[in-house]
Amino acid sequence: MFLFPDSFVASLLEEDLHILDLTSQALGLSDQPAQVRAVARAASVAAGVEVAQRLFQLVGAEVTVQAPSGQVLRSGETLLVARGSVGNLHGAYKIAQNVLEYCGGVATRARLMVDQARGVSAAEVLVTRKHFPGAKRLSLAAALAGGAQIHRVGLSDSILIFDQHSQFLGGVEGLVKALPGVKSKYLEKKIAVEVANLAEAELVARAGADVIQCEKFVESDLRLAVQKVRAINPLVKILAAGGVNGDNAAALAATGVDGLVTSWPYFGKPQDVKMEFSDL
Amino acid sequence: MFLFPDSFVASLLEEDLHILDLTSQALGLSDQPAQVRAVARAASVAAGVEVAQRLFQLVGAEVTVQAPSGQVLRSGETLLVARGSVGNLHGAYKIAQNVLEYCGGVATRARLMVDQARGVSAAEVLVTRKHFPGAKRLSLAAALAGGAQIHRVGLSDSILIFDQHSQFLGGVEGLVKALPGVKSKYLEKKIAVEVANLAEAELVARAGADVIQCEKFVESDLRLAVQKVRAINPLVKILAAGGVNGDNAAALAATGVDGLVTSWPYFGKPQDVKMEFSDL
Amino acid sequence: MFLFPDSFVASLLEEDLHILDLTSQALGLSDQPAQVRAVARAASVAAGVEVAQRLFQLVGAEVTVQAPSGQVLRSGETLLVARGSVGNLHGAYKIAQNVLEYCGGVATRARLMVDQARGVSAAEVLVTRKHFPGAKRLSLAAALAGGAQIHRVGLSDSILIFDQHSQFLGGVEGLVKALPGVKSKYLEKKIAVEVANLAEAELVARAGADVIQCEKFVESDLRLAVQKVRAINPLVKILAAGGVNGDNAAALAATGVDGLVTSWPYFGKPQDVKMEFSDL
Amino acid sequence: MFLFPDSFVASLLEEDLHILDLTSQALGLSDQPAQVRAVARAASVAAGVEVAQRLFQLVGAEVTVQAPSGQVLRSGETLLVARGSVGNLHGAYKIAQNVLEYCGGVATRARLMVDQARGVSAAEVLVTRKHFPGAKRLSLAAALAGGAQIHRVGLSDSILIFDQHSQFLGGVEGLVKALPGVKSKYLEKKIAVEVANLAEAELVARAGADVIQCEKFVESDLRLAVQKVRAINPLVKILAAGGVNGDNAAALAATGVDGLVTSWPYFGKPQDVKMEFSDL
Amino acid sequence: MFLFPDSFVASLLEEDLHILDLTSQALGLSDQPAQVRAVARAASVAAGVEVAQRLFQLVGAEVTVQAPSGQVLRSGETLLVARGSVGNLHGAYKIAQNVLEYCGGVATRARLMVDQARGVSAAEVLVTRKHFPGAKRLSLAAALAGGAQIHRVGLSDSILIFDQHSQFLGGVEGLVKALPGVKSKYLEKKIAVEVANLAEAELVARAGADVIQCEKFVESDLRLAVQKVRAINPLVKILAAGGVNGDNAAALAATGVDGLVTSWPYFGKPQDVKMEFSDL
Amino acid sequence: MFLFPDSFVASLLEEDLHILDLTSQALGLSDQPAQVRAVARAASVAAGVEVAQRLFQLVGAEVTVQAPSGQVLRSGETLLVARGSVGNLHGAYKIAQNVLEYCGGVATRARLMVDQARGVSAAEVLVTRKHFPGAKRLSLAAALAGGAQIHRVGLSDSILIFDQHSQFLGGVEGLVKALPGVKSKYLEKKIAVEVANLAEAELVARAGADVIQCEKFVESDLRLAVQKVRAINPLVKILAAGGVNGDNAAALAATGVDGLVTSWPYFGKPQDVKMEFSDL
Repeated sequence: MFLFPDSFVASLLEEDLHILDLTSQALGLSDQPAQVRAVARAASVAAGVEVAQRLFQLVGAEVTVQAPSGQVLRSGETLLVARGSVGNLHGAYKIAQNVLEYCGGVATRARLMVDQARGVSAAEVLVTRKHFPGAKRLSLAAALAGGAQIHRVGLSDSILIFDQHSQFLGGVEGLVKALPGVKSKYLEKKIAVEVANLAEAELVARAGADVIQCEKFVESDLRLAVQKVRAINPLVKILAAGGVNGDNAAALAATGVDGLVTSWPYFGKPQDVKMEFSDL
Repeated sequence: MFLFPDSFVASLLEEDLHILDLTSQALGLSDQPAQVRAVARAASVAAGVEVAQRLFQLVGAEVTVQAPSGQVLRSGETLLVARGSVGNLHGAYKIAQNVLEYCGGVATRARLMVDQARGVSAAEVLVTRKHFPGAKRLSLAAALAGGAQIHRVGLSDSILIFDQHSQFLGGVEGLVKALPGVKSKYLEKKIAVEVANLAEAELVARAGADVIQCEKFVESDLRLAVQKVRAINPLVKILAAGGVNGDNAAALAATGVDGLVTSWPYFGKPQDVKMEFSDL
Repeated sequence: MFLFPDSFVASLLEEDLHILDLTSQALGLSDQPAQVRAVARAASVAAGVEVAQRLFQLVGAEVTVQAPSGQVLRSGETLLVARGSVGNLHGAYKIAQNVLEYCGGVATRARLMVDQARGVSAAEVLVTRKHFPGAKRLSLAAALAGGAQIHRVGLSDSILIFDQHSQFLGGVEGLVKALPGVKSKYLEKKIAVEVANLAEAELVARAGADVIQCEKFVESDLRLAVQKVRAINPLVKILAAGGVNGDNAAALAATGVDGLVTSWPYFGKPQDVKMEFSDL
Repeated sequence: MFLFPDSFVASLLEEDLHILDLTSQALGLSDQPAQVRAVARAASVAAGVEVAQRLFQLVGAEVTVQAPSGQVLRSGETLLVARGSVGNLHGAYKIAQNVLEYCGGVATRARLMVDQARGVSAAEVLVTRKHFPGAKRLSLAAALAGGAQIHRVGLSDSILIFDQHSQFLGGVEGLVKALPGVKSKYLEKKIAVEVANLAEAELVARAGADVIQCEKFVESDLRLAVQKVRAINPLVKILAAGGVNGDNAAALAATGVDGLVTSWPYFGKPQDVKMEFSDL
Repeated sequence: MFLFPDSFVASLLEEDLHILDLTSQALGLSDQPAQVRAVARAASVAAGVEVAQRLFQLVGAEVTVQAPSGQVLRSGETLLVARGSVGNLHGAYKIAQNVLEYCGGVATRARLMVDQARGVSAAEVLVTRKHFPGAKRLSLAAALAGGAQIHRVGLSDSILIFDQHSQFLGGVEGLVKALPGVKSKYLEKKIAVEVANLAEAELVARAGADVIQCEKFVESDLRLAVQKVRAINPLVKILAAGGVNGDNAAALAATGVDGLVTSWPYFGKPQDVKMEFSDL
Repeated sequence: MFLFPDSFVASLLEEDLHILDLTSQALGLSDQPAQVRAVARAASVAAGVEVAQRLFQLVGAEVTVQAPSGQVLRSGETLLVARGSVGNLHGAYKIAQNVLEYCGGVATRARLMVDQARGVSAAEVLVTRKHFPGAKRLSLAAALAGGAQIHRVGLSDSILIFDQHSQFLGGVEGLVKALPGVKSKYLEKKIAVEVANLAEAELVARAGADVIQCEKFVESDLRLAVQKVRAINPLVKILAAGGVNGDNAAALAATGVDGLVTSWPYFGKPQDVKMEFSDL
């Protein structure tokens, strides 16, 4: 279960419909019954559909979901239909469209990358916490809808050691000394370490890192890292990170890494979704 | 004054630092004094700086802003420096970086489009409400930092009539009949109408529209619309909308429109900002 | 659509029913079914009815609205009937009554002023942002229910230049110089200026102000301002502001202004609404 | 200590300054240093001053309070001075003025009523929970500043039995039977009962009510009620309620009641407060 | 009516189910229909049932309450049954269980103490505001479910004078001088005073205290205090406070006090409640 | 860094000090300067100190922390000193005391259990999410202050498979089949499984579980489980859970398990902390 609290959905609505919809009011559009249909303008992956549904419900509309989040859509396929009064539907349809389009964009790009990776290996696509600030719920749910996994929800749920940590421990050497203690104290967590080069990868593999995140490795180095680290400990998971995108995903996956850490699905254009109004 | 309420900035922090920073805790990094410097990795426009500043303040750090939002940055230029404990800085620096990078991206693209438009005309760049859901404050502030103006804050602040409205009024003909009443009743507001073709533009110009938004007009039609509408009423403002982007901004501006309505600055990659930690 | 978020309605309830209703609990009043009928004690305009309805729903009652907001009520007419348990109805009925009474007062006074103005001209009644702090939603919705329009929702939605602005621009002369730039940059907004006398009105009319707000003009000056400004630019809208009330509305409207800017409907006594309990 | 949580004060600010101050931005008013002085335009009682102070602080201004809430003001006396940038001061001064004016109005009317009552007796003025919905904190604090006391904060803090309760207990007779049990179970609370006539007053006095609230009694009946109830039990407190206002407060107090329960200070015009800007 | 606002119940859910339920997602448990039954593992008092019900409703489940809060439960008795999808039920059942168990513990201990007191006298059990910080609603509701009364909801609803107050009034002597003024000004409130010994109890009884709270009196002193205070004023209510627990409640009640002020029901283990899942 | 957002700390304050402190107001205690010192009445572990500090700051007091959270305290040792006005200090000191006492109780019990475990092994004490609903932040921070670790923050941060999951997968056999897929897909997480007996422990160890949580095993079975599971895979972490308390912690730790999963520190009495007021 992915939680979208009502307070969150309401905050999306209030962001756009702060007090009133001046245009509909000025035109006297209010009680006439109508429906609005959300239609994908291109093949894509549905996402944010349950949030869009709730947005319409918050203004009193009834909603039928035809394509739940995660469903692969053909061009022209309907995502949902909302029925209510013209006035109320106008209060919510643009923000609902925005949710469907932005989430659809993230999900479609995530799906694309997953498909590219899966074409060559079993590597997972893992999305980072580097989404638009304030957009964690929508971004993570959309990435999941596209078949990606969550790298880290945030700072509270995993241990991932960066250079910005080790520099206060005396560098990689200091880190290597600290790792065993961390491992036994945080026994329910895997310990992940980001490394900048092959030598560091080998060092932290020997020191007991459970996950090694190779930052901006060129393809050949990544392949070598996989080989060397596996030789040290075949249980260690190896991740490619830094600059992973839709163009290099397959090549990076082909190096044998276990996962691709990426923010790429978060960027780019929203997916086009048409909102068709009609009488009821 | 652009308002970033503390509750908003805190929500950005809590999204990432939900309960605790497990990694710093595991490594015993806490009270040691340190600083972190945010440095632009490329020429760009600073944005979100005051939000990043407040994020660091919320974890108890002291911040010096060196490049306030709106400032044009050379590569390598420092945005801000935060001083505090290693533990606290680690709790906030990634979300602060995220704010600087995403806002910097929006501002830099907005600036680019403004510069392109200004190269050929006085047309304003006007950003829409089609930003990432939940990201209105950051998106609008960033666009302003880049020199753009706000098209609409939301539904409460302006009257903009779409086809989705007129279809419930009996189409453009119905709208034309309704316009004079709306104009006199909402006397403090300009009445804007989105049109799909030249004929509609002329119709609504005659009916008294104050602003005409030409949706997805090809360049030649736009030029013609400017000419025809001006002939009807030289006070009417004419906007190009729909598919306005960094490639066509100059050409569209050159048609003589008064403004370019665009969501394009919202899309694309965040601007790279480096976060350099050092001892204090 | 006018938005009353659930969080807002709940905050009204919690303000009064903080934790529990001690009296009903002490008397053992809880599960017995009952109904409460809200009845207007005098001819008036219904307002806040949908908020009262939601308040009762939040404590689990079922509500039938008989007079939606905006309806003109005869003395003795029923606004709504809520059905539930004695205990729950007692938790909400006083705050619901309070909403109906205060909103009813605002709406009835707004209606009165609109009727007075309409008796002599087409001038609109425009309510200000000078309502009880924290009461914007209820106050604006009530004024709309009474037939008034909203002058400004807040600082984000319109440009209205006061003396407190011009004094930092070098006075009215500085403002006159600044106006053309503001007009072309904020092309989707009308530019409104408050003036203190006839000379200022003429100055800013010539400088291109779209709306001129005449602050505390005596009737004869207002009439003169209308005449002079119209001569300069017949498209400029002229508003009377400052001390507009139920006694002088007709006289001020008769001067030919386009609108009366007023806070008067916000003041004064709530409208009496009787809450009649009965068994079910 | 009266609590005004920051979240509450911020909500007042955001209600008006939702996203940005468009006018100051359009005029380019931002960093120039300035001050604003809040000055009473008439003799009155200061109230809401600490809230106004905090409002200015929330936009980064420094504030000197010259007349704390509760102070009696001469015409022309300064309440507070805020110093900051023109841009920030413009973001907060109108809502601060609104707080000072509305609270000042409540406090001044409360003071007037207290003075009238005190002229003839020791009766307390007790303000009800019938304030503008959402305005409890400001209304109660303002009434206290004017020398009144709080009748009830809300439903959680006292036991006050209305006719709407007794009708579900079998009327006053049923209530009389229930009272002793309530008294012994809620031993830390006084039990208050609202009565509609002299006979009821005597009945509930005999049944052990600690406080008797006489609803809409004419003066002579009130005087008689005081006499009769005192004869039954001299410890019972007797309150006049219903239609108590600035005109009849002295007469009602002169009947010998212990308190006047009133909503009258909540109604009426805000107190005029001038906001004078100047350079710094 | 005891209010549990939706925002409060949602905060309990979000505390545990912050973003998603990773385990159910990892196992692919989502849409399969199921039910969960909450069963008391021991004789106890039901409490928090309506909150648990709402928690399940917030994740879309349908709930049948079989034992409302306050009901005495036999071992094995069902509290509620929730029906929904496996995925959604897993998102809420642990926090619902937690609510039932902690509240059940408080209610059962409250009931135990009430029964002990009632065995020997009519003394009320009065629970303090010394519950787990943040747990006021659940704690007070649970204590009420167990038959206890609320001593104080918080600082806003009653006057209770501690030594920490009198020390700034010149000690008990100063307090004695201040009491009459407080009594007549706060005429709708009983004035309670905490005393440390018999002498103080007699002093404040003579000074007019309505309620005397005897802090940590040994049984014999308490008995004497009851006798002496009653002799001074039979209407004064006498409370035992400080160290009142399940072992000494009967003995303390037997001294003749009117109430036992206690935090004891808040401490101790939650009541065991089994959550039985089954297919639907 | 452990985050206590201001909104959270403010909610603790407002829970107790809802609107005003009636007692201090009634006694006229407000502006007189004073200090309050928080003193441990017994040897214990300090916790919640930073929250108490912030509570006092929210009412305008200045605070000196003398014993930060985690510090072992002798009886009579000072935790913090707050300086401010009598009125403001009275608004916050009881809730601050409550935080110090409840957190101190959790931390002291956590410390006790850690010490017992450490006396015989390196087993970690891991606190569950079964704390008082709504008390996660305080409970976890207090447990950390006492030297325990966090078992799970909530549902979003780890994978822990219960019988309530496997029953929908076809029991333990179904789970065993599902485990490898979960392991490779959630490659950055350890997969934990709760087992009810030795046979299940061996099954899931062979299936690749990273952590095995033995629910309510008797000591001898636990010892056997450690031996058998280690033989299958020495890297698997073994936890004892269910009924772990201060009496059996050492014995259970002595079985060789890696961790003790417990809610026991959450139960029991708050630690006594004295709040000593004095003049300034």
